[in-house]
Amino acid sequence: MTSMSGGETSQAGDVGAEMHRWVSDLFPICRSLTGDGVRETLAYLGRLIPSLTVHEVPTGTSAFDWTVPDEWNIRGAYIEDEHGRRIVDFALSNLHVVGYSTPVDEWMTLAELQPHLHSLPDQPDAIPYVTSYYARRWGFCLPHSRREKLPDVRYHVVIDSTLEPGSLTYGEVLIPGSEKNEVLLSTYICHPSLANNELSGPAVTTALARWIASLPQRRLSYRIVFVPETIGAIVYISRHLDELKSRIVAGYVVTCVGDDRAYSLLRSRKGNTLADRAAKLVLRRHAPDHVEYSYLDRGSDERQYCSPGVDLPVASIMRTRYNSYPEYHPSLDDLTLVTPSGLQGAFDVVRKTIVLIEQNRTYRTTTLCEPQLGRRGLYPTLSTRGAGFALRTMTSLIAYADGTRDLVDMAELLEIGPEEAIETATRLEAAGLLEAVDDANFGAIRPR
Amino acid sequence: MTSMSGGETSQAGDVGAEMHRWVSDLFPICRSLTGDGVRETLAYLGRLIPSLTVHEVPTGTSAFDWTVPDEWNIRGAYIEDEHGRRIVDFALSNLHVVGYSTPVDEWMTLAELQPHLHSLPDQPDAIPYVTSYYARRWGFCLPHSRREKLPDVRYHVVIDSTLEPGSLTYGEVLIPGSEKNEVLLSTYICHPSLANNELSGPAVTTALARWIASLPQRRLSYRIVFVPETIGAIVYISRHLDELKSRIVAGYVVTCVGDDRAYSLLRSRKGNTLADRAAKLVLRRHAPDHVEYSYLDRGSDERQYCSPGVDLPVASIMRTRYNSYPEYHPSLDDLTLVTPSGLQGAFDVVRKTIVLIEQNRTYRTTTLCEPQLGRRGLYPTLSTRGAGFALRTMTSLIAYADGTRDLVDMAELLEIGPEEAIETATRLEAAGLLEAVDDANFGAIRPR
Amino acid sequence: MTSMSGGETSQAGDVGAEMHRWVSDLFPICRSLTGDGVRETLAYLGRLIPSLTVHEVPTGTSAFDWTVPDEWNIRGAYIEDEHGRRIVDFALSNLHVVGYSTPVDEWMTLAELQPHLHSLPDQPDAIPYVTSYYARRWGFCLPHSRREKLPDVRYHVVIDSTLEPGSLTYGEVLIPGSEKNEVLLSTYICHPSLANNELSGPAVTTALARWIASLPQRRLSYRIVFVPETIGAIVYISRHLDELKSRIVAGYVVTCVGDDRAYSLLRSRKGNTLADRAAKLVLRRHAPDHVEYSYLDRGSDERQYCSPGVDLPVASIMRTRYNSYPEYHPSLDDLTLVTPSGLQGAFDVVRKTIVLIEQNRTYRTTTLCEPQLGRRGLYPTLSTRGAGFALRTMTSLIAYADGTRDLVDMAELLEIGPEEAIETATRLEAAGLLEAVDDANFGAIRPR
Repeated sequence: MTSMSGGETSQAGDVGAEMHRWVSDLFPICRSLTGDGVRETLAYLGRLIPSLTVHEVPTGTSAFDWTVPDEWNIRGAYIEDEHGRRIVDFALSNLHVVGYSTPVDEWMTLAELQPHLHSLPDQPDAIPYVTSYYARRWGFCLPHSRREKLPDVRYHVVIDSTLEPGSLTYGEVLIPGSEKNEVLLSTYICHPSLANNELSGPAVTTALARWIASLPQRRLSYRIVFVPETIGAIVYISRHLDELKSRIVAGYVVTCVGDDRAYSLLRSRKGNTLADRAAKLVLRRHAPDHVEYSYLDRGSDERQYCSPGVDLPVASIMRTRYNSYPEYHPSLDDLTLVTPSGLQGAFDVVRKTIVLIEQNRTYRTTTLCEPQLGRRGLYPTLSTRGAGFALRTMTSLIAYADGTRDLVDMAELLEIGPEEAIETATRLEAAGLLEAVDDANFGAIRPR
Repeated sequence: MTSMSGGETSQAGDVGAEMHRWVSDLFPICRSLTGDGVRETLAYLGRLIPSLTVHEVPTGTSAFDWTVPDEWNIRGAYIEDEHGRRIVDFALSNLHVVGYSTPVDEWMTLAELQPHLHSLPDQPDAIPYVTSYYARRWGFCLPHSRREKLPDVRYHVVIDSTLEPGSLTYGEVLIPGSEKNEVLLSTYICHPSLANNELSGPAVTTALARWIASLPQRRLSYRIVFVPETIGAIVYISRHLDELKSRIVAGYVVTCVGDDRAYSLLRSRKGNTLADRAAKLVLRRHAPDHVEYSYLDRGSDERQYCSPGVDLPVASIMRTRYNSYPEYHPSLDDLTLVTPSGLQGAFDVVRKTIVLIEQNRTYRTTTLCEPQLGRRGLYPTLSTRGAGFALRTMTSLIAYADGTRDLVDMAELLEIGPEEAIETATRLEAAGLLEAVDDANFGAIRPR
Repeated sequence: MTSMSGGETSQAGDVGAEMHRWVSDLFPICRSLTGDGVRETLAYLGRLIPSLTVHEVPTGTSAFDWTVPDEWNIRGAYIEDEHGRRIVDFALSNLHVVGYSTPVDEWMTLAELQPHLHSLPDQPDAIPYVTSYYARRWGFCLPHSRREKLPDVRYHVVIDSTLEPGSLTYGEVLIPGSEKNEVLLSTYICHPSLANNELSGPAVTTALARWIASLPQRRLSYRIVFVPETIGAIVYISRHLDELKSRIVAGYVVTCVGDDRAYSLLRSRKGNTLADRAAKLVLRRHAPDHVEYSYLDRGSDERQYCSPGVDLPVASIMRTRYNSYPEYHPSLDDLTLVTPSGLQGAFDVVRKTIVLIEQNRTYRTTTLCEPQLGRRGLYPTLSTRGAGFALRTMTSLIAYADGTRDLVDMAELLEIGPEEAIETATRLEAAGLLEAVDDANFGAIRPR
């Protein structure tokens, strides 16, 4: 798979700035579970990934325990005081309106307005992010400092929205490889102007899709989805369950991948799938101080992919995890929090993990007893003190290659990095000393 | 099983003082492996538990490697000096006579008497507890301080006992539930005037039997036995082996449950049966500083229940473990060592453990992907920051309910207490979101 | 198996001095992979072990990935300066010539000679040990201090060696027991004048072979091989693969067993075979501070015995491990490093391990519930405080004898030493309370 490694420098070198530009372009769009904001976002991404297909799922469609809700669109919204002064204006920030607010055009007292207002006493200058997808209500979000100064007058409250039958929109990219087995990347596109959660996710995922598509060859196939969180993932799974279950060998939810403060791995429910092990091996080298979370700390679409009966091997790779940084979910999660280097770091980790999964095979030696490395030019011909202990990685890969451990496990056992493991295994396979014994179904082993 | 929870306050509130009264009433009776002391004890308990049945097993009956011994009864015993002064008198403490002493009526020198005397140099004011069930001898126990002052005169030694064919007596309470699966409680009734080891055991077990029988409904059936230690348990097992093996899902030896100093769990041989796991979960909440012993530290009838080939899931719940407190086995183990609160605490732990086992099921979700909690009133309809992390127990029970873990395991994984686990699972099952997939055979799982 | 235990004192008492004498006798011989030095060594050992058979395998014979090389013999070698002064002389130390050096008889400048010289700057007074088995070259080894003083003159370089078709020579001892199952001992005989690595190995192995052969009876059979390292082991395995795989229940590579500084266990690849567990149990008592190495630290013929597809349960017992002591491989590894007590200690550990393996059975109780020890004279008939906790080893062996653990595992669980485990199990088996349920295939268990 030299093609993948070769691709590293040329394609992947400096994609951080480019990703940050995409985040900036997409930032103003008012995304929600459904609606034109999602379509506009997917149209932008489709210009970057020509093979992206967009799917519309009509309101009312069943998906397991759920039903696709009405489509929400909004053109504008404001609160004006008696003098026509705008206290709150959707045009300035789409976070000002509670997601899925029903239309309203009324005059009311401050006391009547208050139950419809949301603010954060602890972060008095931030606009909170609030939604009400499944109960019809309307509301406004504003800085607590501003809310506290509202005079006790009458207000004109306008939300020019529609909430009516339409469809839920998602995007999908399928990139074929030599095998039908697939790697899944899943990210979401349902948050309005929030940079790290969520736009960092679609940006890094888009860069990964472009890099994968650019490779001259791939062993595995790739399934990359841009879905509204929760309902979108559920709809997607309900339409593709059998395919997903039979094909996905590892998958990642890509979210909160834009800041510079940490790297995080959130384990799948089973905790030790290929997705977990491969990401762990890469992170141990790339970011030895990364944070590890168990599935008890789950919070995004892995909740669906790993749910009982779906049982996909899906983990989450993040920089700082959602809900673990102070800017999470109010308006503070903006374009300053997400950086080119933050995005680049996340891109690199997922990319290296994919390279590792592409190369991950279960190996067995082709000879009984140790092979004679010397006559293959793999061993010093002169035995001096120490020579028996050199070339340790090569001889250890051979010593343990009994067809029970894949390369990721071997690297973990030998305490070597993914690159060293791949390079050594490739060299030994080329020399005819190791053979891969896992078949296309990943894990089934041919008997000796 | 609201009936069981509901029963907690009304029935179980203040049984400590009552149990202590029973211990006091039973204290003077001279119990042994066999004989009228055992019958008298069971008669007393039978007045408290009307469904108690008493069984007589004739001397000579085989039970695996053992044979029921002759029955022992004693009417009186003393040592008098030449002046007719009673040095030792059975009437003052039944510990003064070695259990199963053969009859004697002789004059002898102090030197001849000495080999028949037992005392404790380390606890010079205590009467030791000594028995000789399987070798015919006679002897007296007395405080070491008194023994040392015995003048070198002749003594009249009298034991008015009989040791002849009769029977071994035990009691049994069977309380049926909806299922044939059973919980076993086993305690012993073969020690004379010793309060913690043993009367605390029968007292707490009696209170538990009364509480269980009072419940309006039970899922499981209960088998509660009052047997002479070792030989009684072996006889009982030999008569009920197949039943026990096919029905017992968890059991406890109830012993040394009367003091106030500690809580202890002695694990079954296998160490991780339902009996072990359920008691552990309860103790972790009820007495976080409880002491845990492995089966290597065994010492009572779990030795029979867990023996190879019998293999029952039986652990021991105790306050301070036998052999671990200074009053163990001499006369210091009296009515001051056992307290109402000590008994009450043990009663509460076993009761809570039984409630947990009653409710313990292996759950599976009824939907693929997460269910929509909102439309069932189980989830806030307004999504604000933090809402995704609330209701953690409910969503985690769902997230892990894949039909491989029972509720006890789930609670351990989620680090929640038994009450929270039961309440949440009950609520989710009522909402149709979880279904129990273990059948009446406990552990067999229906395929999805 | 009292014969084995009985043999301990008489036969095995003071073999340390004897072993040291053998090492001294064998020290001057110039051994290599092949050649007359190996034959001379085996002839010496054959006088100590009459049943030793010597095998010759012709040059060119295939063995898995390897081919038996040409045979090497050497009669003399030196470097002389222009004045006929011998700078280096094989007659003084056979380490002076690179093993498998091709013949040479030439005059050359110091500059021309230098690429053929080997020395150790860090150990300037030591002669290094260097071989070149599979690439044809010649060379000399000398102290670095001497090399640095060589004047820039012309030198006469002579190696009177032959490297031509012949054979590889190894020795084999087969000692039959009641069962076909075998214990393997493997040591190597291919190093010239090096005392700890390697002559300690053949010496201790010879003493073990003599002790085993002297036993009046053995349950297991013994296969003891003296082979050139690597190629010899590979040749041996290639000729006996099926036999080895079907018969070996435990094996040890015996190497570096002559110094006084440490005890070491290098685990087999699988890490928890009988070979590992038994040696561990013995070492825990005999040398609680022994060093343990994983198979990652392997370095001798366990590399072949444990290789994938060969999969034998072979560990290594050592004093200080190869490559872990400063004298390893240069001329410093001489007769002062190896001591009678060092050899004796290693002999004792392997001997005790063999005794343990001979006695290692998987036991099951013959009765349900506890047996009545008292009527068999195994238990005090008088029950006093503490008696229930005495005889702990006996009752615990019974308590855990459920047919799932062998004696080594039981001893580990009970934290007792091998002697106590053997003695107790033997006593209980004699009393008919335990029965061995493993059959001759080691590990297959008869159903109850």
